[in-house]
Amino acid sequence: MTSIIMGLETSFCRDLASTLDKLYEERITVVAAPLFHPRFRRDTSSISDARDGPQTRSDLVLDSRGWTSSVIGNISKWINLDSSSDRVRLSAEKVFKQELAWVSHLSLTAVITPALHPTRSNANYARILNQAATQAQYTQYWVHVPMYNPMQFTDQGNDSWKTWNALRSMCEFNPRIGIALEVTSDLPDRTILERWLGEPIYAVLIPTEIFLTNKSGYPTLSKQHQRFFLQLFQHNKIRYFLKGRPYHHDRYLPYVQYMDHLWSTRSTCPDAKAAFEAPYLDYLQAPLQPLMDNLESQTYETFEQDPVKYERYQVAITQALAATSEDKESVVMVVGAGRGPLVRCALRAAEKANRTIRMYAVEKNPNAVITLRNMKISEKWDNVTIVSSDMRVWQAPEQADIMVSELLGSFGDNELSPECLDGAQSFLKEGGVSIPAKYTSFVAPISSSKLWNEVKTIEPSGLKGYETPYVVRLHQIFSFDRPQPCFTFSHPNLDAIIDNKRYTTLEFEANEDGALHGLAGYFDSVLYEDTCISINPKTLDLSPGMFSWFPIFFPLRTPLQVRQHDRIHVCFWRQVGGGKVWYEWAVAVNDVWTPIHNPNGRSYWIGL
Amino acid sequence: MTSIIMGLETSFCRDLASTLDKLYEERITVVAAPLFHPRFRRDTSSISDARDGPQTRSDLVLDSRGWTSSVIGNISKWINLDSSSDRVRLSAEKVFKQELAWVSHLSLTAVITPALHPTRSNANYARILNQAATQAQYTQYWVHVPMYNPMQFTDQGNDSWKTWNALRSMCEFNPRIGIALEVTSDLPDRTILERWLGEPIYAVLIPTEIFLTNKSGYPTLSKQHQRFFLQLFQHNKIRYFLKGRPYHHDRYLPYVQYMDHLWSTRSTCPDAKAAFEAPYLDYLQAPLQPLMDNLESQTYETFEQDPVKYERYQVAITQALAATSEDKESVVMVVGAGRGPLVRCALRAAEKANRTIRMYAVEKNPNAVITLRNMKISEKWDNVTIVSSDMRVWQAPEQADIMVSELLGSFGDNELSPECLDGAQSFLKEGGVSIPAKYTSFVAPISSSKLWNEVKTIEPSGLKGYETPYVVRLHQIFSFDRPQPCFTFSHPNLDAIIDNKRYTTLEFEANEDGALHGLAGYFDSVLYEDTCISINPKTLDLSPGMFSWFPIFFPLRTPLQVRQHDRIHVCFWRQVGGGKVWYEWAVAVNDVWTPIHNPNGRSYWIGL
Repeated sequence: MTSIIMGLETSFCRDLASTLDKLYEERITVVAAPLFHPRFRRDTSSISDARDGPQTRSDLVLDSRGWTSSVIGNISKWINLDSSSDRVRLSAEKVFKQELAWVSHLSLTAVITPALHPTRSNANYARILNQAATQAQYTQYWVHVPMYNPMQFTDQGNDSWKTWNALRSMCEFNPRIGIALEVTSDLPDRTILERWLGEPIYAVLIPTEIFLTNKSGYPTLSKQHQRFFLQLFQHNKIRYFLKGRPYHHDRYLPYVQYMDHLWSTRSTCPDAKAAFEAPYLDYLQAPLQPLMDNLESQTYETFEQDPVKYERYQVAITQALAATSEDKESVVMVVGAGRGPLVRCALRAAEKANRTIRMYAVEKNPNAVITLRNMKISEKWDNVTIVSSDMRVWQAPEQADIMVSELLGSFGDNELSPECLDGAQSFLKEGGVSIPAKYTSFVAPISSSKLWNEVKTIEPSGLKGYETPYVVRLHQIFSFDRPQPCFTFSHPNLDAIIDNKRYTTLEFEANEDGALHGLAGYFDSVLYEDTCISINPKTLDLSPGMFSWFPIFFPLRTPLQVRQHDRIHVCFWRQVGGGKVWYEWAVAVNDVWTPIHNPNGRSYWIGL
Repeated sequence: MTSIIMGLETSFCRDLASTLDKLYEERITVVAAPLFHPRFRRDTSSISDARDGPQTRSDLVLDSRGWTSSVIGNISKWINLDSSSDRVRLSAEKVFKQELAWVSHLSLTAVITPALHPTRSNANYARILNQAATQAQYTQYWVHVPMYNPMQFTDQGNDSWKTWNALRSMCEFNPRIGIALEVTSDLPDRTILERWLGEPIYAVLIPTEIFLTNKSGYPTLSKQHQRFFLQLFQHNKIRYFLKGRPYHHDRYLPYVQYMDHLWSTRSTCPDAKAAFEAPYLDYLQAPLQPLMDNLESQTYETFEQDPVKYERYQVAITQALAATSEDKESVVMVVGAGRGPLVRCALRAAEKANRTIRMYAVEKNPNAVITLRNMKISEKWDNVTIVSSDMRVWQAPEQADIMVSELLGSFGDNELSPECLDGAQSFLKEGGVSIPAKYTSFVAPISSSKLWNEVKTIEPSGLKGYETPYVVRLHQIFSFDRPQPCFTFSHPNLDAIIDNKRYTTLEFEANEDGALHGLAGYFDSVLYEDTCISINPKTLDLSPGMFSWFPIFFPLRTPLQVRQHDRIHVCFWRQVGGGKVWYEWAVAVNDVWTPIHNPNGRSYWIGL
């Protein structure tokens, strides 16, 4: 989008068509308007009555495209679905259903439902909303949630989140139910703001009264608000609505122009990494199984384009070669050579380090070997021997000084680098160097109802989907604590008995209340001495701009509710057996444990 | 069973066959013995070795019937499955698997697994146990749990339960995993004792050192221990094992005789109610749908045998008739007459109250009508008119003074008594009496991993099983708080618009830590003035010995962990629509909500 699309939320509008026409001149193209006249209050007996006149405006005031593209329904705000009076509650239910029936008749894309009661239970509201959302075909339900409610002020000032959290838990995180977040003049603390970003915000309501006036008399926002909007703008599908009368110049246009200006200050020239990642935000993918399956040409191509990863490898190989004596020809083996990017790195490194090398490029995928053999001719790789073999069974004619590989997955060892390199290290000289020398996986407990819902979509019933990790460009998430190291592997592995099973227990402390949906996984790796790569968000500066790996997401079968300062325990196992490797995981909030996920690798495993 | 079956738990026994022979003389028929010599400690490298001799006794020392009927395996106690040392942990895993393989080879019915670590995590223990239990065909795993561990003493003294609770949560309440509860000299408080009774106790270990000595020098138990054992004896399938050397007379026989004596003091002459209920303890049944389905003869017969219910009805009808003037002939209608028990009640009541009555017996089940017509002849019901019709559509020739019905279910209104009586009340005179006059359902949050597992067995995947209530003679349960009233219906219903939808929110306070598995449902009913019936455990004395109704159980999809003094909120809806009636329910511990169960009656409903 080159400019922001703005709407207006209004509590009343008599003539929809002409209102829309007028607003269009102010660059507002959508209106969120009440469906029934706000003064037309109905009780149980009168709802079914035809009364004297019609109950609301005709569906003919707009054509059907007009209704779906330009109008969001506003459910009557006066209804009280949780009244302790049966009469009030039952008539509220009838009004709600009547208005939703009308919404459905008009095929509106979304409705804004009334604000949650800040102090009392909203259980009946939840039941009715859940009923509607379960049965709905297209309509989304945007629950009106003010960010900050003076009536809800507590020590943490975050009760409006708690109210929302109770509602959506009862509705089992139904993806048709999202938030119409009303931005308030007072903003809560930064962690609380960030937690909202992990929630399904479908619309943002911006009251005109939160705007300040600049020197020229035009509307502007506080620095704090600006920062928050810039964060919101990273989320693609949020709709924005002004709300309230225009205090500046009696027109909405200045507000729209300001929002448009703010929108334009987003970084509009994405780097290679951002451009590459954009389509994958919060999109779940099954992890690669390069050992069992052969990669396709396209996959090689994608990963070869990483501007940072091979540069880091080249530096590492250069350093390793520089440490050898000048008059010696070193043997360099690339195990898992693919279509040759590491061969090229090594050749360039030898030049840079001013050393002569003799190389072997070992690759098990016969299709990639074809490419390698062609390159040997076209790129004059005279000192490179191409070997078409699985590194675990190849009989090397001599031993290597340096063994280079790129077998790491999003969680470090999850593409079975340890098992491959353990097999290959027999042809590494004593004292020889493995690049990478070491890698460590990292884990952090996160909240993301979006990802959890995606898993539900993949596998509506049954556990399999929840016991599988996904490679995903984490975006709309909230992390309860910093990532902690999980499993480490070093190469060559000089243990008397090599055992790649692992077991780790981690303890986190929640920095905020929230719903814990799963674990984010990352890794970092020491290629050689101080040359590292990392996708751990806390150490991204080790290899800035590298895009070959997205994080990995281990879901939980049932979200756990977490309170600030709660201890989150995580148990992680790496299991090996029967030609398979798999992970098992269990999480506790305080002492309440989930079941162990993926026991015996029943839902997910990686084939050796 | 006429006498208790006792076993012996021993840490060592060299010659199994002769040990069993000798113990048999002391009336001990089962031995829980180590499978491998306790001094035979193995580490990773030596496990697979054949060594010089065999690793354990031969399977030929007993025949296979001997192994399965007389031996329980004792897993080596020295292994440490959660050691922070990889070497110790990995060898413990191997030993555990080796011993389980041997257990499986011998087809033992159960093994006792090592005691849980009182202070450290048992997560890896849980993983291995879960793996074994998931793959096992027959074997049960009895986790050794001391009731009271001085090392675990806290304010509540209940940490051994917490340790167990963490383990079984990780194993997702696997029914193959139960407790071998070791009774200790010091017993915890009564609520904590009662909570153990809601847990899957498969075996009880009784150390000889907890016995006192009576005047004659024989073993005896403290009053507190006696009381606890009498409670345990109500659970059918627990196995009992003495443990430790015999301090009294160097023989086990005195201990066995004492336990046998204690066993014989159970109430051995069960009343009609206990006899009727015995086969149904904790057995889940689908609630009756008498409105949609016709009851079978056998069902009528069962319920007609209730010694209390019809006595209460007779008292109620007598009272109602006594309130009419002496010289008037009253019209009594029995709506839903079945095979006539209420007709008989009314006839006897008229005699007792010395009133003349004219009766109508209305029944929709044509099979029951055949019985009624036969009875009219055989029992000379000259003043009774048999009407074969659904009470909701029958056109009565005159109006009744008293309308009697027995349409109540375990949850009061759950067999649609309100809907039936609303239809029938058109032929009740103004000021006429309905018996029952009022009924109220009750709800209490309970813990029962047994019931929750039964639900899982019914419906291993999918939600349907968890969104259905079950009629069940609750037995091995723990109730977190007293039942509270839920829905009330009164008849005749004189409201201008009759609406049988209901919505109630309840708040409980947990009297103890535990896992909340669902809601127990009960009801009571005012038949007439002070004549009542009740299955609410707190008011059973209103109709002692009545057995027509078991309680109802509303499960939760996922157990909730509860801590003492936590607030438990329950929302309950009774919904009516589309020819159906159904319940929806949601529960929160503090503010953490479950999803709303059974939305739109998707899993369970009662047909009108």
